[in-house]
Amino acid sequence: MIKTIKKIGVLTSGGDSPGMNAAIRSVVRTCAYYKVECMGIYRGYQGMIEGDFKDMGPRSVHNIVNKGGTILKSARSKDFMTPEGRKQAYENLVKENIDALVIIGGDGSFTGALVFNKEFGIPVMGIPGTIDNDIFGTSHTLGFDTALNTVVDVIDKIRDTASSHNRLFLVEVMGRDAGHIALNAGIGAGAEEILIPEENMGLERLLESLRRSKLSGKSSSIVVIAEGDKIGKSVFELKDYIDQNLPEYEVRVSVLGHMQRGGSPSCFDRVLASRLGVKSVESLLEGKSGYMVGLNNDKVELTPLEQAIKGHSEIDRELLKVSDIMSI
Amino acid sequence: MIKTIKKIGVLTSGGDSPGMNAAIRSVVRTCAYYKVECMGIYRGYQGMIEGDFKDMGPRSVHNIVNKGGTILKSARSKDFMTPEGRKQAYENLVKENIDALVIIGGDGSFTGALVFNKEFGIPVMGIPGTIDNDIFGTSHTLGFDTALNTVVDVIDKIRDTASSHNRLFLVEVMGRDAGHIALNAGIGAGAEEILIPEENMGLERLLESLRRSKLSGKSSSIVVIAEGDKIGKSVFELKDYIDQNLPEYEVRVSVLGHMQRGGSPSCFDRVLASRLGVKSVESLLEGKSGYMVGLNNDKVELTPLEQAIKGHSEIDRELLKVSDIMSI
Amino acid sequence: MIKTIKKIGVLTSGGDSPGMNAAIRSVVRTCAYYKVECMGIYRGYQGMIEGDFKDMGPRSVHNIVNKGGTILKSARSKDFMTPEGRKQAYENLVKENIDALVIIGGDGSFTGALVFNKEFGIPVMGIPGTIDNDIFGTSHTLGFDTALNTVVDVIDKIRDTASSHNRLFLVEVMGRDAGHIALNAGIGAGAEEILIPEENMGLERLLESLRRSKLSGKSSSIVVIAEGDKIGKSVFELKDYIDQNLPEYEVRVSVLGHMQRGGSPSCFDRVLASRLGVKSVESLLEGKSGYMVGLNNDKVELTPLEQAIKGHSEIDRELLKVSDIMSI
Amino acid sequence: MIKTIKKIGVLTSGGDSPGMNAAIRSVVRTCAYYKVECMGIYRGYQGMIEGDFKDMGPRSVHNIVNKGGTILKSARSKDFMTPEGRKQAYENLVKENIDALVIIGGDGSFTGALVFNKEFGIPVMGIPGTIDNDIFGTSHTLGFDTALNTVVDVIDKIRDTASSHNRLFLVEVMGRDAGHIALNAGIGAGAEEILIPEENMGLERLLESLRRSKLSGKSSSIVVIAEGDKIGKSVFELKDYIDQNLPEYEVRVSVLGHMQRGGSPSCFDRVLASRLGVKSVESLLEGKSGYMVGLNNDKVELTPLEQAIKGHSEIDRELLKVSDIMSI
Repeated sequence: MIKTIKKIGVLTSGGDSPGMNAAIRSVVRTCAYYKVECMGIYRGYQGMIEGDFKDMGPRSVHNIVNKGGTILKSARSKDFMTPEGRKQAYENLVKENIDALVIIGGDGSFTGALVFNKEFGIPVMGIPGTIDNDIFGTSHTLGFDTALNTVVDVIDKIRDTASSHNRLFLVEVMGRDAGHIALNAGIGAGAEEILIPEENMGLERLLESLRRSKLSGKSSSIVVIAEGDKIGKSVFELKDYIDQNLPEYEVRVSVLGHMQRGGSPSCFDRVLASRLGVKSVESLLEGKSGYMVGLNNDKVELTPLEQAIKGHSEIDRELLKVSDIMSI
Repeated sequence: MIKTIKKIGVLTSGGDSPGMNAAIRSVVRTCAYYKVECMGIYRGYQGMIEGDFKDMGPRSVHNIVNKGGTILKSARSKDFMTPEGRKQAYENLVKENIDALVIIGGDGSFTGALVFNKEFGIPVMGIPGTIDNDIFGTSHTLGFDTALNTVVDVIDKIRDTASSHNRLFLVEVMGRDAGHIALNAGIGAGAEEILIPEENMGLERLLESLRRSKLSGKSSSIVVIAEGDKIGKSVFELKDYIDQNLPEYEVRVSVLGHMQRGGSPSCFDRVLASRLGVKSVESLLEGKSGYMVGLNNDKVELTPLEQAIKGHSEIDRELLKVSDIMSI
Repeated sequence: MIKTIKKIGVLTSGGDSPGMNAAIRSVVRTCAYYKVECMGIYRGYQGMIEGDFKDMGPRSVHNIVNKGGTILKSARSKDFMTPEGRKQAYENLVKENIDALVIIGGDGSFTGALVFNKEFGIPVMGIPGTIDNDIFGTSHTLGFDTALNTVVDVIDKIRDTASSHNRLFLVEVMGRDAGHIALNAGIGAGAEEILIPEENMGLERLLESLRRSKLSGKSSSIVVIAEGDKIGKSVFELKDYIDQNLPEYEVRVSVLGHMQRGGSPSCFDRVLASRLGVKSVESLLEGKSGYMVGLNNDKVELTPLEQAIKGHSEIDRELLKVSDIMSI
Repeated sequence: MIKTIKKIGVLTSGGDSPGMNAAIRSVVRTCAYYKVECMGIYRGYQGMIEGDFKDMGPRSVHNIVNKGGTILKSARSKDFMTPEGRKQAYENLVKENIDALVIIGGDGSFTGALVFNKEFGIPVMGIPGTIDNDIFGTSHTLGFDTALNTVVDVIDKIRDTASSHNRLFLVEVMGRDAGHIALNAGIGAGAEEILIPEENMGLERLLESLRRSKLSGKSSSIVVIAEGDKIGKSVFELKDYIDQNLPEYEVRVSVLGHMQRGGSPSCFDRVLASRLGVKSVESLLEGKSGYMVGLNNDKVELTPLEQAIKGHSEIDRELLKVSDIMSI
């Protein structure tokens, strides 16, 4: 028999991403809509261990749909990796009568949720929140769309100065394991080349492409590079390499960094967050557990957390070709 | 036997939308990639009739991926509704050796394309460009995503002043026949109520909802209203009606208007435009004609223009419920 | 002998403007810096009458420097226009041991402050917060710079669609009595003509200018119109008039409205707010009262509130000429 | 006797800055207004040497008032440092009948203009275009205001993630010799500390301040650092130093780089550019030469180029104190 859920806890964990606040708001309001209590847990699993909880009602999430970051704060928790830490966390939940959890975060956060669920049987649902879009089972993670807009806005500015000076810019964007940001933002920003972890372009081909680019009459160029690209050089080493091999270019480097994680979420991310929040609570109330809510073919669907963690979110290879054609 | 296509004409028609320039750029560069000539046609069908053409190569579309509006300009053409006008247009195409067309626009533009295709046999492909997202056969039209971001950005500003003064704002957004903008931007902006053409909410239910909103402790409220809502009153009349019936509210009106059509396209719209441009040219080169290229389940697919015109792009009813829950 | 000030109250009054929160933050933190207590008063004078007060320390104003609106809310107060209302307000201040006030607002708010100061002797300082820039004694009011950026951003979007369609747009901006927004934003947005309260251009000269504009080869035009212009027609009537007299133009109207009051403040407004907040508190602590802090020749200076209220903030006539030259 | 000026050349030189296009537009249209011819010179002095000229009329500068970068492109020219190079440049001007120059750029560009003016007697006027605001004789250089807004927008995003994770961010902004950007954007972004070339804060005082900041209950902190600060460590070395000495902080670095030079200019910069362009041409037509047009006390005034080059644009020390108070 399924225990009736009367109080849901919600937390954000791992790297923050735009839309997390909209998701918190949605979880809290959906709880209120279904007359279930809701409690915010601060600083992810660490706050769960330390008992850093707060009751939340519809008005506690007033005017946050458009705010970047997470009002519940986020943190990585080493303590939660120990059985003692998790036991302490569970005891705190029991004390507060929290009988289900919504976890907003990425891979690592879901792994924690699953372990916890298996150890103590408490129902959990995951909402994919990360700008990297590297989670299996959803076409879009929360914050991905916003991060793309941030990146193209910045590259638009860089292009102003690049084309005023006929320069080549190497722009490093986030993505250690996945090239989603680089590939989409690169196409969106009109990049000449895009280097991603999924493809080994090779230095020679890059030089060749830049040479051709110059010959074709392009006066300035942007190369977008994911952190985890396979070129085997840091972006600064790559600059030196191009300086030596293509002296006709004046090369500059820009590392976008953490600004990609912040900012007011795009409409897409706000709507997605609202939808996923509703579905996560409704699924718990229907007795489901151990799933991630995600977007598939524009529909909100459930994927077992186990699959979400193990699976790999492939890049769309059509985009590689589009990028190739666009940079002619 | 399919005539080999050697030269493609591209035009924008109807209301402009962000991403049209990115689509033009994509069509032009894909032609270059496949070593086919490309010609821009100014001011839509009217320019086709007047012979307002220009050769375009990869460098002619330099630095426009991020620009709003359309460098080819757009216009509505009464002359193209006459057989004489279309005959003149066709003769101009023959003179310039243009043997296929890519039409970027909405319903009306596609209807023109289809008639023209039937009369003269010239292959045509359509790219859906309109902020209204009201075209069957694609989950997203070019410019829709950008318009949503524009609308939520503006409502975020309005909410600043609304909540400083505890006011109710009626915000009218575009959408004569379709509530896509109102529904998505309304959820994204945290609107209390959303009025759309697809639903007749009724004045009484609206008043009731606003009364409840006040009682629940909300200090300010936003109602998002599509132009073509079914409430039977202009937004200004609605203000008067609320003034009379809910004197506890201080009501203000904001009509967003044409700003929704402009602005630098979002990354999503730029990538979509690039993909659709590639597919439209490739399809023509494969001998296809009479289709619209669109996005279905995140894949670029073809829909017969006839269906695209006749079909109706339904709103996602899940969003109505999400909106309902969010405004608790 | 000057009574030592131990506790300062701060409120926002009248129409809100971007930068008010940054000014509140500055007042609160400057109080803390000088070890003086600080109390926020909600909803302007009305909250003072109703005793709607809250202690504020440096952390209460955390993360608001970049927020539009005012966390203290604003309201117009009829009660404060009565001696009874003001008496009640004064008694509340006495009860809370507030012995000086900083008033952030416009003309009307300063008038109230002055009357109150004369009746009860409580020291007051004013910070000019209004987007209209219509206050004598400061080159810039808080929010003016931000509003200008909001207006040019929106007109940039409108121009995208205007030039795609060869249209004429009439854009109405705020400014019932002062043309500062229209004049500056008009130049910034590249407007063909600018109609302001300070000048009576006359319908004939406007038509003449638009005719010339068309002849000079301009394909699209923007006319920026202050609410209080002297043309004697509403912006919609003006559209009809141009429709009739210049049928070669396709005219559209856009009324920007309240969005101009909101939004994250520009860096200029944030820095200005910080400077004015510091000076207002320091002046009170030096025993000064009855002044407005403002910006003159880039320096923060004091102007007697009486002068600030009576004086008129003239438009810079050099700008009229610049506008004239730019629209050639 | 003053030779009547019939044709003015305009160029942009040195690092580009937002507002340069608006200034070009203003110079070109002011020439047209006074019925003087105007010629654009590409790539600064280098283009002058290579004869890279183009006639410009009012329509050539259509729709550029809002564009970042410079349509005339910019470059540094070694050849112009040689007498032969300058002679070649002069001969090109003579050939094109250009009899006066407007130079938009910074210190270095003005030095070149002055040498050229002394050697060949050709009248020159300078417009200060650089984001650094480091030119004597003007309170604001073109692009400074826009760069400040870009920086605070980015730091607002960084703060979202900083406060979600309770982190300390070191944000490096432009300014090798001048702290104007760091100081203003630091105050605008609510930075805890600001390191600038004009002040040697010293490592110990910085650590002390960060320690106090932590104790005062601040959960996250931003330190804004000008490139040319006097701390004697690179921003990455500084991170390591803080990591070792303040292990309670989790430190991250962000180097903003070239994005600060690009982007659509703010309304302030557009209006300033328009005013300076008008004045530069009018001054030439009045027979003046060897001056920079700038803003002093909100008025457009002339400063001899020699002074502009030699003088130093001091930071406003009041701002240091404001920053100090705000970070309490």
